[in-house]
Amino acid sequence: MNQIKAEIIAIGDELLYGQIIDTNSHWISQELTKIGVRVIQRTTVGDQEGSILKAFEEAEKRADIILMTGGLGPTNDDLTKPLLAKYFECEIALVPEALEAVRSFFEKRGRELTPLNELQAHLPTKCTYVPNEVGTAPGMWFEEHGKQWMSMPGVPHEMKKLMEDFVLPKIKATHKLPIIYHKVIKTVGIGESWLADLIKHWEAGLPDHIRLAYLPSLGQVKLRLTAFGEDYDELQADVETQIDLVKPLIDKYIFGYNSETLEEAVGRLLKQKNKKLALAESCTGGYISHMITSIPGSSKYFQGGVTPYHNEFKTKLLSVDPEILKTHGAVSEATVVTMAQEVRSMFNADIGLSSSGIAGPGGGWKEKPVGTIWIACSNGEKTISKKLQLTQDRMLNIQLTAISALNLLRLVLTDQTE
Amino acid sequence: MNQIKAEIIAIGDELLYGQIIDTNSHWISQELTKIGVRVIQRTTVGDQEGSILKAFEEAEKRADIILMTGGLGPTNDDLTKPLLAKYFECEIALVPEALEAVRSFFEKRGRELTPLNELQAHLPTKCTYVPNEVGTAPGMWFEEHGKQWMSMPGVPHEMKKLMEDFVLPKIKATHKLPIIYHKVIKTVGIGESWLADLIKHWEAGLPDHIRLAYLPSLGQVKLRLTAFGEDYDELQADVETQIDLVKPLIDKYIFGYNSETLEEAVGRLLKQKNKKLALAESCTGGYISHMITSIPGSSKYFQGGVTPYHNEFKTKLLSVDPEILKTHGAVSEATVVTMAQEVRSMFNADIGLSSSGIAGPGGGWKEKPVGTIWIACSNGEKTISKKLQLTQDRMLNIQLTAISALNLLRLVLTDQTE
Repeated sequence: MNQIKAEIIAIGDELLYGQIIDTNSHWISQELTKIGVRVIQRTTVGDQEGSILKAFEEAEKRADIILMTGGLGPTNDDLTKPLLAKYFECEIALVPEALEAVRSFFEKRGRELTPLNELQAHLPTKCTYVPNEVGTAPGMWFEEHGKQWMSMPGVPHEMKKLMEDFVLPKIKATHKLPIIYHKVIKTVGIGESWLADLIKHWEAGLPDHIRLAYLPSLGQVKLRLTAFGEDYDELQADVETQIDLVKPLIDKYIFGYNSETLEEAVGRLLKQKNKKLALAESCTGGYISHMITSIPGSSKYFQGGVTPYHNEFKTKLLSVDPEILKTHGAVSEATVVTMAQEVRSMFNADIGLSSSGIAGPGGGWKEKPVGTIWIACSNGEKTISKKLQLTQDRMLNIQLTAISALNLLRLVLTDQTE
Repeated sequence: MNQIKAEIIAIGDELLYGQIIDTNSHWISQELTKIGVRVIQRTTVGDQEGSILKAFEEAEKRADIILMTGGLGPTNDDLTKPLLAKYFECEIALVPEALEAVRSFFEKRGRELTPLNELQAHLPTKCTYVPNEVGTAPGMWFEEHGKQWMSMPGVPHEMKKLMEDFVLPKIKATHKLPIIYHKVIKTVGIGESWLADLIKHWEAGLPDHIRLAYLPSLGQVKLRLTAFGEDYDELQADVETQIDLVKPLIDKYIFGYNSETLEEAVGRLLKQKNKKLALAESCTGGYISHMITSIPGSSKYFQGGVTPYHNEFKTKLLSVDPEILKTHGAVSEATVVTMAQEVRSMFNADIGLSSSGIAGPGGGWKEKPVGTIWIACSNGEKTISKKLQLTQDRMLNIQLTAISALNLLRLVLTDQTE
């Protein structure tokens, strides 16, 4: 089967000046890859006639599908439409249906149609008008020069709606695309090379039609399995078989699948096990609490938290013995253990989770350099603590500590702390 | 003066598959624009010899400077180096200095040099070796075919270091660039169109050599003034004159200049005025605390915070009268006022800041729909509260509330609450 090739062209001076970041091309790349279209190039050009026409020409030589974003606003400097008409040698004429759509878009918002907006309903005669339900610049679909072309506005949610409602279904309906099944295994608490080492025999034995990709991110590694074939259900079964084989090798590190985040996974476990959580954060300064509460419905399992940023409040609010602070310091096992235990009672929780460390960049010394951090998790029966030796970077230390703490909580909840 | 033109080429299948987002091209665009180089195109290609060579060829026709990122790792699929050697018709040979650098990089980290890493010290003979102090893939600078070329690794912090230490100074030293002076005024608490309305007469009177750009982001609007001319000091003076004129019109909304963030500005004010802060967060769930503590040195002015995520803890820890909770609810002026006042004493602070609201997506009702949020700030003398009516989106509500709360704190600290 020949692979269908696509090229993405983003248009706009504001992209080249770095005023806005082009998240559109990234999103389109992901969506096309998912349905089995191969993205072969992405090009960003400014609002210059020569550059845009040259980009059309070059893309046409390489790709079967050319998707364009940007350059469709109501102001003068938006060039895409006249250049498409020029490139495909046609006129620009009023599309009554498009005018009606723009008019009703403004009516609903109680705003008046301006002559500039009216112009947005004038389209190249060779295009198929594609209604934009969430904005005023319509999509334009061309089948010219033996290729498929789509022009979309640069506003991300308008582009996404046009892609989902029209472009992706159209591409699927008009091309024979490979059948693809993806599943992502999400791991935490192990580095990429160690993970690779644990699963190397399994990886070597993967059938030819299943590919593996390692996708590392902060403190986590995703394993993406992609199966190619003729039958979706068969591919799904094949991938599940492989997951059943790899799972026992790395079970301790797997927290979820596909789009589930670590904070969602921890929330799911807390709900399943009907356990309530409380947090005592020092060096993470509220970041774990923020991660937990960013999940809708977290009030079901999150009782609350306290951030005693100075020793006196560790003593006053969490009964950390001043003697401990004097002998062991605030960054010590004894301190985080007390914090985790005490915050449980403070918030009538089942589980207490704590952090204390030197986030940096200042404040370290020889015995406890920047990046020295202790975390602890207490469930009433036992309290598990862990020392981390992280980086010189404050924000990185905060984020990595939060991930380690959530992972410790996950291991406690699933009885995997050995 | 002829504008110097640059093209950016990002190399890597992982970009075209949408596995990672290309923040490099965006950052390079910004930095080049700042020094007066015009970015004319950005191209992203995969790990295919044909596409990469074609991209070199095309870029060479358009640009004076070609900057490449990616395709330099130690694994087999990294193509950039052999293709640069092919394109410029030269050999690849060991650069002893580069080998020494890689060796010492590994030594410092207590790791052993692998043969693959050793290969990274083999470079095209026509390039100037540019040391990479924070990674193992060196930078390569070429002056070939009448153009300047730089190849850099795709890891963002490695690329940035090479750009800052070598590429940008080199470009400035070898081209006559226009003199440009930028200053950014940072505002919070006012929307773009209202801001534009307040300063429209000033904007209309700006001299021709100073341009204004509105750069809106979440809850904030940046005003960037860019002056073009012959003399840097003169441009700086011209921009300062304009800022002196616009300041009285929008003084209340200005929190800082250039790269200063709102949380940095608030920290600066707290330090200047020698005031200590405590936080009582309900709906923001620790996010304000995270913003405050993300700033190095925040322990100087941040005492701590508490997140009582349920009513019982608002009563137990912050003495919110159960009667108030019953009559007015947790999302009420009376509740946030008590929270702000009580958290001051809890943490021996000068100022208490609080939030309580319905972040969503669930939990709203007719009288208090999702997005209804109260914030308060107490300095002991007075307590200022504010009601916000925000969005349906949980994360957006959390972020916008945090920004509003920090702004309220800023206004209290600067006696601008009228």
